[in-house]
Amino acid sequence: MNRKSWQEMTQDLVAVAMGRMHADLVICNGRWVNVHSGEILPGSDVAVFGGRIAYVGPDASHCIGPKTRIIEAKQRYLVPGLCDAHMHVESGMVTVTEFARAVIPHGTTSMFIDPHEIANVLGLPGVRLMHDEAATLPINVYVQMPSCVPSAPGLETPGASIGPDEVAEAMTWPGIVGLGEMMNFPGVFGGDENLHAEMAATMRAGKVIGGHYASPDLGRPFHGYVAGGPADDHEGTRLEDAVARVRQGMKAMLRLGSAWYDVAAQVKAITEQVLDSRNFILCTDDSHSGTLVGEGHMDRVVRHAIAQGLRPITAIQMATLNTALHFGLERDMGSITPGRYADIVITSDLVALPIEMVIAGGQIVAENGRIAIDIPAYTYPDFAVGTVKLGKRLAASDFDARLTTENRRQTTATVRVIGVVENQAPTKALERTLPVVDGLIQPDPAQGVSHLALVERHRATGEVTNGFVSGFGFNVPCAVASTVAHDSHHMIIVGTDMADMARAANRLGEVGGGVVVFKEGREIALVELPIAGLMSDERAEIVAAKAGRMVEAFAECGCTMHNAYMQLSLLALVVIPELRISDKGIVDVRTFEVVGLSVG
Amino acid sequence: MNRKSWQEMTQDLVAVAMGRMHADLVICNGRWVNVHSGEILPGSDVAVFGGRIAYVGPDASHCIGPKTRIIEAKQRYLVPGLCDAHMHVESGMVTVTEFARAVIPHGTTSMFIDPHEIANVLGLPGVRLMHDEAATLPINVYVQMPSCVPSAPGLETPGASIGPDEVAEAMTWPGIVGLGEMMNFPGVFGGDENLHAEMAATMRAGKVIGGHYASPDLGRPFHGYVAGGPADDHEGTRLEDAVARVRQGMKAMLRLGSAWYDVAAQVKAITEQVLDSRNFILCTDDSHSGTLVGEGHMDRVVRHAIAQGLRPITAIQMATLNTALHFGLERDMGSITPGRYADIVITSDLVALPIEMVIAGGQIVAENGRIAIDIPAYTYPDFAVGTVKLGKRLAASDFDARLTTENRRQTTATVRVIGVVENQAPTKALERTLPVVDGLIQPDPAQGVSHLALVERHRATGEVTNGFVSGFGFNVPCAVASTVAHDSHHMIIVGTDMADMARAANRLGEVGGGVVVFKEGREIALVELPIAGLMSDERAEIVAAKAGRMVEAFAECGCTMHNAYMQLSLLALVVIPELRISDKGIVDVRTFEVVGLSVG
Repeated sequence: MNRKSWQEMTQDLVAVAMGRMHADLVICNGRWVNVHSGEILPGSDVAVFGGRIAYVGPDASHCIGPKTRIIEAKQRYLVPGLCDAHMHVESGMVTVTEFARAVIPHGTTSMFIDPHEIANVLGLPGVRLMHDEAATLPINVYVQMPSCVPSAPGLETPGASIGPDEVAEAMTWPGIVGLGEMMNFPGVFGGDENLHAEMAATMRAGKVIGGHYASPDLGRPFHGYVAGGPADDHEGTRLEDAVARVRQGMKAMLRLGSAWYDVAAQVKAITEQVLDSRNFILCTDDSHSGTLVGEGHMDRVVRHAIAQGLRPITAIQMATLNTALHFGLERDMGSITPGRYADIVITSDLVALPIEMVIAGGQIVAENGRIAIDIPAYTYPDFAVGTVKLGKRLAASDFDARLTTENRRQTTATVRVIGVVENQAPTKALERTLPVVDGLIQPDPAQGVSHLALVERHRATGEVTNGFVSGFGFNVPCAVASTVAHDSHHMIIVGTDMADMARAANRLGEVGGGVVVFKEGREIALVELPIAGLMSDERAEIVAAKAGRMVEAFAECGCTMHNAYMQLSLLALVVIPELRISDKGIVDVRTFEVVGLSVG
Repeated sequence: MNRKSWQEMTQDLVAVAMGRMHADLVICNGRWVNVHSGEILPGSDVAVFGGRIAYVGPDASHCIGPKTRIIEAKQRYLVPGLCDAHMHVESGMVTVTEFARAVIPHGTTSMFIDPHEIANVLGLPGVRLMHDEAATLPINVYVQMPSCVPSAPGLETPGASIGPDEVAEAMTWPGIVGLGEMMNFPGVFGGDENLHAEMAATMRAGKVIGGHYASPDLGRPFHGYVAGGPADDHEGTRLEDAVARVRQGMKAMLRLGSAWYDVAAQVKAITEQVLDSRNFILCTDDSHSGTLVGEGHMDRVVRHAIAQGLRPITAIQMATLNTALHFGLERDMGSITPGRYADIVITSDLVALPIEMVIAGGQIVAENGRIAIDIPAYTYPDFAVGTVKLGKRLAASDFDARLTTENRRQTTATVRVIGVVENQAPTKALERTLPVVDGLIQPDPAQGVSHLALVERHRATGEVTNGFVSGFGFNVPCAVASTVAHDSHHMIIVGTDMADMARAANRLGEVGGGVVVFKEGREIALVELPIAGLMSDERAEIVAAKAGRMVEAFAECGCTMHNAYMQLSLLALVVIPELRISDKGIVDVRTFEVVGLSVG
C-alpha cells in the first residue's frame, strides 16, 4: 500500500515508456482486458516500473533491459486486479493480514474495508489499528470510517462510540476513503444532527458516504435518505431496489457474501432493463473464512455475475474500474493503463476465471492458487487483545430469569420470546407461557424455548440480561456463546443448561473472546477470537476449520437450523425487527423501546 | 457559482424530500432524461431548494407550499444543463460574463474555461481576474490553470510566464479544477522538469491535468505523454486518435468549435467500434462570438453529435455526466438527481433540441432563446485594460525590412516567406526572391508576398520584427493588425502599405488592442478588445457584428481566404510548423530555431 504516488513517478514512468529507462517487469503477449474501452486487445505488452504501469501497448520490447523480469502471458487474459468495494474483514474472523493472505490467490488486489465491528469494541483507536495494519500489506486496502457506533443509540451500550469529531479526525488519515455504511437511515431522513454532521465532515473532505438503506420502502423515506448524501448502497435485494438507486444517482452495489445473494435479482437491471452498467459495483460485504478458503472471494462474485448473463467485461468493470471511479481512485487503480498500480490477474478464461497469476504493485503475489510472497503475521497491541472484561467468574445463577413481581406461588408466566426464523434475519416477537419454579422462569424444551443471555463485556460490570429464544432446537444440556454479537459485541449465550452457560461465558473470558460450544459440561468446540473478541490471530484455513467444527458442534446439540451461528450473533442486533436483546434489556425493534421480559 | 455546498444543505434537502419543508421550485410532469441509468422517465417531478435538487420522482406534490413556484413541463424533456468541458473564453473576444450571457440561452450551465490567452498577457493575476469574474456568474464556470506560458520558452517572450509555483498557488483557489491543456507534449515525453513539476502540483491537489497531444504519432511519444499524467485530450482528429486515448485511460474530448470539426470522425469510436461511451466528452475549445450568436454553443455540439448517429441520451451524457465525472464534480452537477445543482434544460425534442427553458441553480435564466435574468456587466481593473504598450508612435519606416549585409547595389534578395495554406494551421517555409531598393527588401504582389511585422507590445520596447508572408491575397494598399496573436499576443500586422501598417499599429495602441483594417489610408473596420488586448467589454452580438464587418473588410482588401483573421492571429504561434514570426525573429518550427530573414 505505501507506494509512491503517480506524481512522484511521472519522470520515471515517461522514461520507461520512451525506452530511456528499463522496466522492472514486462508482461508479454497478453489479451488486454481494457475496462475503459470495453475491448479485449490481443498481443498486448505491459511494462511496469516502481509498482506502477509505465506502458501498455503492442510492443514493450524497448522497455526491456538486462534486469527486467519477463512474464510470458502466452495470449492469456490480463485482467485488472479485482476490488471488493465494501466488506467487513471481521466477518472472516481474521486479521486484515490473514484476510489478504486468503484472498490474494483469488485475484483480489483492492479491498474497501469498513471496520465497523472493532469500532464497536475499541472505537476510533480500533479503527486506526486496522487502518495501520492495512497500510502494511502488499495489496490496496482502503478504509471506510464506521458511521453508526452505536447502531441504535439509547438501546445498547457499545464498547466505544463514534461521532462527528471522530469522523472528521479519521478523514485526515491517509487510508480513509469515506464514511462506512450509513445504517441509521431513519436518522438520515429524520434529520439527526450527529449523523448529518458525520456526512458533512465526509463530504467536506471530498470523500464518499457509503449507504445502507435496509428498507423495501422506495417512497419518501428513500428519497429523503438519498437527499442526505449517501452515494452508494449495498442493501438492495430486488430489481426495483437497484433501479431506484441508480436513477437517483447512487451506485448500486450488488452483494454476494457468504450469506448474501443479492446479485442475481438486481443484475437484471442491466441484463433485462438495459440500465447503464457503469452505475453497478460488486462487493461481498461479509465473507466467512470458510467461504474464502473453499469458494473464493471477488473471483467468486465475478463468476456468479457472469453466470447471470452479464458480459464478462461488464462484470469485470463492476469489480475494477467502476469501483475505482466511485471512490475517486481511478488514477491509482481499477484498470491496466499507464500510471496505475500494476495490479494484474492473469487468467486463461474470462468465464471460468481461473486465477493463474496475481500481480500486485508489480510484484507476483500469487500463482496457481498459492500465495507467492512472505506476508508477516501482524501483531495487535495488548489493548486490543484483552477486551472481554467480565468482572467476575459467572455462575449458573447469573442466568436466573427472575419474575419481577415476587410471587412464590406463581407456576407459570407469559414472557416475550425472540422467535428466530429459519433463513431470515428478522425475528418474531413471540409470547410464550413458561413454567416458573421458585420465582424463576424456566425454558421449555417442548416449546423449543431456550435460555438467552447477554453478558456485558466491555466495562466489567458483570451485568447479565436474561431472556428466552426459540428456534435453535437444542435438545441436550448445552450452551453456545459468542463475543461476536452485532453490533455492540457483548457476549451472547443461548443454552438449555445454566451451568454450561456459565462455563461457556467463563471460557470466552479466559481466551479473550470467540465462539464456544459446551455440551453436557464439556467443551466440544472453540474458535478463539482474541483480537477485540472478534478476530483470530491465526490463518484463515485454521479459522475456517475451527468454525466448521463449531457448526458441527451446534448440530451435535440438536440444532438443525441453517446459519445457526449467524442467527446467534444477530440476536443483539437492535436495528432489525422484531425482538432483540441488549445490555439495556429486551428490545422491541418495531417501536424501538426497551420492554420487560414479562408480558403485561 | 457561489452556492452552498451539499454538506451545508443536507438537512434542508432531506426536509424538502420528506415534505417537512416546502420547495422553492417544483417542475411538474417532465420526461426525466436520466443520464445515470440511461433512461427517459416520463411523468417525473423535480423539487428544488436553495439552488439544489431535493427530490426527483413520480410525485413532488408533498414538496409544494404556498410560495413554491411551479413550472409545468407538460411532458417535455428535462435535460441536465449542458457543459463545455474545455474552452477558451477569449476566443469569443468577450468577457466571461458576456460569454455566459450569450450561451445561457443555448442551455449551457457549466463551462470549463482555460484562460490561456490572458495568462500570456497578464500572467497569474490575469488568470485570477477571470477566475474571480467567473465566480460572480449565475452558471458554473470552473477554471483550468494555464500550463504552458510561454508555449515555446526561448522562442518568444510573452507578457508573463507561468511555472510550477504559480500552478501550485492556483490549485488552492476555489474555482480551479485542474491544469489547462498541457500543450508542450515534447516537454512531457522529454522529461522537462518544470512541466513535470506543474503536473505533480496538480495531481497533489487531486485535480485533473488537461491534455493536448497535437501530433498524429501514436507511437512512443504518445505513450510517453500518457505516462506523464494528462487525463484527457481534445486534440485528436481521427478515429484512431480517440480509440488510442480511451484505451490508455484518457478521456477523449471531441471538439466542435467555430473552426474545429473533430466530432464526426472520432465519434465513430462509439457508433462503429462500440467503445464504452463513458470515456467521451464533448467540448468546443474555441467559439467565436459569431458562432455563439448565430449557431449556438453546446446545444450545437450535441445536435451535431446526434446527427452523427449517437443516441440522444449518449450525446447528452457526453455533455453532462461524463464531464462532471471527469472533473470529480459528479456530486454537484451533470445530472438531475438529489443534491446536485438544479441546472436543467427543458426541451420538447431531444434531436432538434430546441432550448425552451434554462434553469441554473434553481433560477430560470433563459426562456425561448432569451436571457431571463439581469447579469451586470463586469468591469476589469485598469491594469487589465492598458496592456498595449508600444512605447512610441510607429512610423512607416519601422516596417523597413533591411538587408543585414549593407550592399547598396543589391537589387534582389532571397528571403524566407511564411506561406499560409488555405484551411490549414501549419504554414509552409517558403523561399522567395524579392526586389531590393536602397537596401530595403520589398514585398512582391506578383508573387502574393506581403509585409509581415510583429510589434512588441508588453514591455513598450518599440521593437518590431519584420518579415514576409504569402497567401492573404491583398491587392490594394492596406494593412490588417491584431493584438490577438497566439500565444504571446504581441501585435501582428500584415500589409501591403507601410504607412497603413503604422496607422493600424498606432490605432490599436490607442484603443488598447483589438483588430483593425486600414485600406488606402482609411480605417474600414475595427474590433476594440481593450481587456488585455484580447477581449471586448461589449456584448457578444455587438462583437460578432464588428467581427463580421472585419471579415468583410479583409475581403475588400482582396483577401479571398477562409478564416483569414484566424490565419493572421496564428502567424506568431511558434509551436505549429513550419515557419512563424516572434519577437525573437523568424522561427523555423521544424527545428525550433530562430533563423534570419535572408536565406544563406
